[in-house]
Amino acid sequence: MKETFFQVIPVRECIQVLQGFPPTPALTVDLEEAAHMVLAEDVAASEDLPLTHRSCVDGYALKARDTFGATESNPGYLDLAFAIDIHKPPDSGLKSGQCAKIPTGGCLPEGADAVIMVEHTLEMGPNTVEVRKSLPPWENVMLRGEDAAKGQRVLSAGTRLNTVRIGLLAALGCSRVSVHRRVVAGVISTGDEVVEVSRPTRPGLVRDVNSHALAALAGLSGAKVRRYGLVRDELPLLTEKLALALTECDVVLMSGGSSVGSRDHTLEAIRRVCSGRVLVHGLAMSPGKPTIVAAARDKAVVGLPGQVTSAQVVMQVLMLPFVAHLGGAGDAFRVGWNRFPAILSRNIASCQGRTDFVRVSLEHRDSGLPLAVPVQGKSGLLKTLLKADGLVEIPENSAGLNAGQEVLVRPLR
Amino acid sequence: MKETFFQVIPVRECIQVLQGFPPTPALTVDLEEAAHMVLAEDVAASEDLPLTHRSCVDGYALKARDTFGATESNPGYLDLAFAIDIHKPPDSGLKSGQCAKIPTGGCLPEGADAVIMVEHTLEMGPNTVEVRKSLPPWENVMLRGEDAAKGQRVLSAGTRLNTVRIGLLAALGCSRVSVHRRVVAGVISTGDEVVEVSRPTRPGLVRDVNSHALAALAGLSGAKVRRYGLVRDELPLLTEKLALALTECDVVLMSGGSSVGSRDHTLEAIRRVCSGRVLVHGLAMSPGKPTIVAAARDKAVVGLPGQVTSAQVVMQVLMLPFVAHLGGAGDAFRVGWNRFPAILSRNIASCQGRTDFVRVSLEHRDSGLPLAVPVQGKSGLLKTLLKADGLVEIPENSAGLNAGQEVLVRPLR
Repeated sequence: MKETFFQVIPVRECIQVLQGFPPTPALTVDLEEAAHMVLAEDVAASEDLPLTHRSCVDGYALKARDTFGATESNPGYLDLAFAIDIHKPPDSGLKSGQCAKIPTGGCLPEGADAVIMVEHTLEMGPNTVEVRKSLPPWENVMLRGEDAAKGQRVLSAGTRLNTVRIGLLAALGCSRVSVHRRVVAGVISTGDEVVEVSRPTRPGLVRDVNSHALAALAGLSGAKVRRYGLVRDELPLLTEKLALALTECDVVLMSGGSSVGSRDHTLEAIRRVCSGRVLVHGLAMSPGKPTIVAAARDKAVVGLPGQVTSAQVVMQVLMLPFVAHLGGAGDAFRVGWNRFPAILSRNIASCQGRTDFVRVSLEHRDSGLPLAVPVQGKSGLLKTLLKADGLVEIPENSAGLNAGQEVLVRPLR
Repeated sequence: MKETFFQVIPVRECIQVLQGFPPTPALTVDLEEAAHMVLAEDVAASEDLPLTHRSCVDGYALKARDTFGATESNPGYLDLAFAIDIHKPPDSGLKSGQCAKIPTGGCLPEGADAVIMVEHTLEMGPNTVEVRKSLPPWENVMLRGEDAAKGQRVLSAGTRLNTVRIGLLAALGCSRVSVHRRVVAGVISTGDEVVEVSRPTRPGLVRDVNSHALAALAGLSGAKVRRYGLVRDELPLLTEKLALALTECDVVLMSGGSSVGSRDHTLEAIRRVCSGRVLVHGLAMSPGKPTIVAAARDKAVVGLPGQVTSAQVVMQVLMLPFVAHLGGAGDAFRVGWNRFPAILSRNIASCQGRTDFVRVSLEHRDSGLPLAVPVQGKSGLLKTLLKADGLVEIPENSAGLNAGQEVLVRPLR
């Protein structure tokens, strides 16, 4: 059964559909392998971090009240009781009037409540230290449990393990962590006018840009990419390849053949393999109208436009967050620091009822927000993407944006 | 020979030193493997892209002058001569008064110079098309060579192959490309107070945060990371491990032991292995003062601060661009779209003669630039990095920045 028209739905509804797919299952991995994956469980501190009060500086541990009133011109004097080794907690405490030499990171001895930096002292022989500054209690001290108190939840399920968080898990002794398995994304390209990149071309043929660009983009999102290459636009071939890909992948990205032309067998192949569960066929989005989303049990099949620049825009806008969502990220579709403000350089018209994504290049200015300059040129040209730094969204309910208006730019990745 | 003081140099001089290291050699790889690597040679188009004039839309190819004067209320009529197959160039041309049905991407027939969208036409029986719009020449046509003309340089050596550029190379049939080999970065951690993450801890010991955080960060920069684990702070052990790492890596990142304390053997190990070629020992940078850069022939050895947050800041600010530079990126240290403007929420004091990198969290506002709020807390605490979205640089020649001032924020990666 061939359809003549798309049943377009708004972008926000498509995002709701995509958010309905479950994340990959959890598995436990060594911390070495966990970087940039997403936590599947909350993590609580199993001990205080730091484990003891520690010095932030090289200097002398002391009782803060013993420094009260000390200045450059009116220094105080303390007895140097002992020196602290960086990797051993001190075995004796401090009495009033005493201090102990301490390196950065050293444990404070019992009785000490501050550390004076070596720059504000002078050793007056082997047993006396001149103190030239008054310190409030806990000056230059990292308190026991200040980074994390034992039992405290430090990271939540759904958090991506960036570098800083990996460091925190290391500090807490989490050598094994429960994360969502890496998403496996398959890429299939189709179209009778499309040929492999290594093949010679002739008028009427175009090379398989999508396999390469979509695989590169999917890789950026953290997915493991499986390439199924270029498949002829024939229903049995497409159905077979898609069924195979679904046994090996969490999401299959097909490009080409998602339009309503007579040679487009993608939709029918998806119908067969997904038992008819086509959730989206047509998006109120430009570019990106001929986008399909279907479900094969818990797995997703996405039909992307065959037009190469449209396919890349849909990937940037919807598929990168979708892969992050499948990988367990709690905030995959959230507008965050992945967008930055700019001032639009000229009017852009749009249609109400459709979300437009306009390519813009950015121009730094001496001060204030950068200028977002819409890229000119036919939208099918690759050079319109090559010139662009990002995309500006014109919302569904807007007939256009005005020059001078502030916009949020999504950087192209 | 032990030194008492660092010989600090400005950050910009350190960058010059780092830029003096040569990039990795070029090698030829399949396009599938080239994503996010850096071109080692310019790439010129070996043919026109597109190869022929192609239609941007579904519609009818025609001679623009045959539509002149046509409107909704005063349409014109053309003879439908033939239909064009998407993957075959038309074998006949158009005469005056004729049109040919054409799909998006189809090759224009000889004699045609525009395409009218199907929405502006009506088929009046099998041989006549009503045309309801006047078109200027080349309307809805991607011109032969418009994306790239044969012989034209399309990408330069030193360019990172992002998704869009991979797509361009695919379109041009570049199935093999000359790129710089991926950088191999070794990570060594040291310090007698440091223990493996999987080991129990006790007061006086801290876990090996740096091995994990630095490996995760180096991986982000595109490097292949080799972990050499935790080495005791003993000169023969450090020397041996560093010598091994240098046989396997382009750059070795050592953390800990780069200070001037008595147990710091890193510098001496580097001196031995690098035949004394220590290029930087101390940076006028906070945090990051105890940073070492040395050369072992063409390879780099970097001693990072042992303090875990300092080590991560130096990695973010200097080592990510350095690894990109080693990987061939022409603009690795350039200030670009990796920084975004914000307004500082409060004054920050600094010292002239030193470049400070201040952790800030960002607050979106309803309009205008976001607010950069300096993160409070002792700089050694991991939570100061966990709370931060980015770093603000206070330049060497500045005594501080003022509340309300515009700053550029580098996002933490």
